[in-house]
Amino acid sequence: MSSLPAFMARALAQAQKALVISSPNPRVGCVLTDAQGRVLGEGHTQRAGGPHAEVMALRDARSRGAPVSGATAWVTLEPCSHQGRTGPCCDALVAAGIGRVVASLSDPNPRVGGQGFARLRAAGVQVDVGPGAAESRELNLGFLSRMVRGQPWVRVKAAASLDGFTALPNGASQWITGAQARADGHAWRARASALLTGVGTVLADDPRMDVRDTPLLAQLPRQPALAVVDSALRTPPTARLFEAERPIWIYTASTDTARADALRGRGAEVIYLPDGQGRVALPALMAELAQREVNELHVEGGQQLNGALMRAGLVDEWLLYLAPKLMGAGAGLSTEPFAGGPLTSLAMAPALEFHSTQMLGPDLRIVARMAGRDTF
Amino acid sequence: MSSLPAFMARALAQAQKALVISSPNPRVGCVLTDAQGRVLGEGHTQRAGGPHAEVMALRDARSRGAPVSGATAWVTLEPCSHQGRTGPCCDALVAAGIGRVVASLSDPNPRVGGQGFARLRAAGVQVDVGPGAAESRELNLGFLSRMVRGQPWVRVKAAASLDGFTALPNGASQWITGAQARADGHAWRARASALLTGVGTVLADDPRMDVRDTPLLAQLPRQPALAVVDSALRTPPTARLFEAERPIWIYTASTDTARADALRGRGAEVIYLPDGQGRVALPALMAELAQREVNELHVEGGQQLNGALMRAGLVDEWLLYLAPKLMGAGAGLSTEPFAGGPLTSLAMAPALEFHSTQMLGPDLRIVARMAGRDTF
Repeated sequence: MSSLPAFMARALAQAQKALVISSPNPRVGCVLTDAQGRVLGEGHTQRAGGPHAEVMALRDARSRGAPVSGATAWVTLEPCSHQGRTGPCCDALVAAGIGRVVASLSDPNPRVGGQGFARLRAAGVQVDVGPGAAESRELNLGFLSRMVRGQPWVRVKAAASLDGFTALPNGASQWITGAQARADGHAWRARASALLTGVGTVLADDPRMDVRDTPLLAQLPRQPALAVVDSALRTPPTARLFEAERPIWIYTASTDTARADALRGRGAEVIYLPDGQGRVALPALMAELAQREVNELHVEGGQQLNGALMRAGLVDEWLLYLAPKLMGAGAGLSTEPFAGGPLTSLAMAPALEFHSTQMLGPDLRIVARMAGRDTF
Repeated sequence: MSSLPAFMARALAQAQKALVISSPNPRVGCVLTDAQGRVLGEGHTQRAGGPHAEVMALRDARSRGAPVSGATAWVTLEPCSHQGRTGPCCDALVAAGIGRVVASLSDPNPRVGGQGFARLRAAGVQVDVGPGAAESRELNLGFLSRMVRGQPWVRVKAAASLDGFTALPNGASQWITGAQARADGHAWRARASALLTGVGTVLADDPRMDVRDTPLLAQLPRQPALAVVDSALRTPPTARLFEAERPIWIYTASTDTARADALRGRGAEVIYLPDGQGRVALPALMAELAQREVNELHVEGGQQLNGALMRAGLVDEWLLYLAPKLMGAGAGLSTEPFAGGPLTSLAMAPALEFHSTQMLGPDLRIVARMAGRDTF
């Protein structure tokens, strides 16, 4: 961190601006500088189908009238070499006469995979890789997870009292945390490619489950998709989740075509993905979501869904809001999270790592990662 | 905080040095300065029976050969006016020719109660009160609680997993947190006048329940007293808690003289304090501990004791170590904490306030106060 070059830090700040807009593309920033250390142009990935960071930076330099021949491009990910929704960025950099590219990370996208660097070098561009790697990785864990593991980065959100309860014995859970924590939760929804909930939550709380109470809403190109785990197709066609305009994917183990048709009538896609025991196959669900280009999956359900994901080994990260309350009794963060049943020794408890803590008004936000999950 | 005079900040730093040594006296610091803003001497309260901060500062100035006539004394609590184990500090200041006293707080000790300031003013000393009040209060919450409320400041320590469990279903609880958190827990024990546990913990874990694994041990004049809530006198005379040399107070509702005598034989004092329903009267226990000059009471028991204290409305603060683990099931922070039984609405949940958070190696320490408990 301390050795991060200032221009790369600036490129990372650009990349940060792509947080809620670039999905399914990675969040990338680019800064162009001349030999005197002046910034000629900068930019970040636009919404899908729009220009990538390098093209935005070149355009910015052009609009400033700054010649970029021989310039250095500081870019937080390997410039793409493939014709996707836009032209290859490495070609644009070569065509503009860029002399040197400093990139944080190589692109794990199998359609890029070092070819961007190779094409730049072949064109006589000096290429250096590494500065800002940790920061760029962190910002793009979801994209990297999808490319490398073939599954989204799975973040489970929960709000709990200090004694670990997420709902009272009578089911009441609104609101455990205050307005600031809830708005922060909406900001985390906004950065996800898709939200995931369970039919239990749909039936209990009838949530809209969309992005609302965050300033990021203004930047959002579209609402994240909503996936629902609904083994028996119990989601009511009248549920409030249909009120928000976005793709709705209902994963089921039911062959009840009448129910499926009713949900399709509300615009949902119903996907049959049984595990052979009457439930949705959760590992297959993750692979399926990756095929739908889901980078970060934001899970907001109840202890049943959380427990099932834990037992399946699919949770990467907990986003936990702790309220300064004692509830005394009720539902916990998850049902039995271990496939082998209750632990008999503390050494058996799967380890996490606290990633960050932050006060949000009266509440405390904890981001904790399952240990070893971010090593792909 | 921002307007805290530098000399008072220095006096508070002195007071901090008294953290584990001055009980049952308050933690007080004193800095003497001349008109040119030079520090002439400084000091802090010594162990009980030893000199107070003002006398230590006067001695320090004398040993430096610095004349203190006309000097200003920055002191974090009203100088005492009574003959206790030591002579009145206000007389010592007057005798030394101190010209001005700036004090953070007036002393709520009924034997002082503004008389210190009055005697200083009567002797022609200028007295200003207020700078550093919040900090001095914070450092002396236990002393103030005992003086004003007639009960100790009750801090309940617990170590829990991220999902709120303090022991596995089979009772295993060693160790939930890592070495740094456990050492920090010993530091909090060290600052308490007394520790409190329950017979359930004694029977389950057979702890020594003393101060060991902290650098503060070297400063500790003596181990804190240990109080045990033991309604039926089930504490085994062979328990490891008898291994540490310190007062042991066993509070009971039992009249079994044979058991009591066996415990007395191990050096314990057995105090009969029944609530009329076969249990120890917890509010009376707190008053009794205050009479024994307990400022901060460090509670380290299990969910039974924690729940009983919560239901009795006696908990002031939670000292919670959260480990980055999921345990899935087991004992929680406390049994039903509300006298009225399970809550039916979140609005009924007693509120706390997060006071501080700190990482300790892999673990997170949270200090949270029951709302409104520090307003005495």
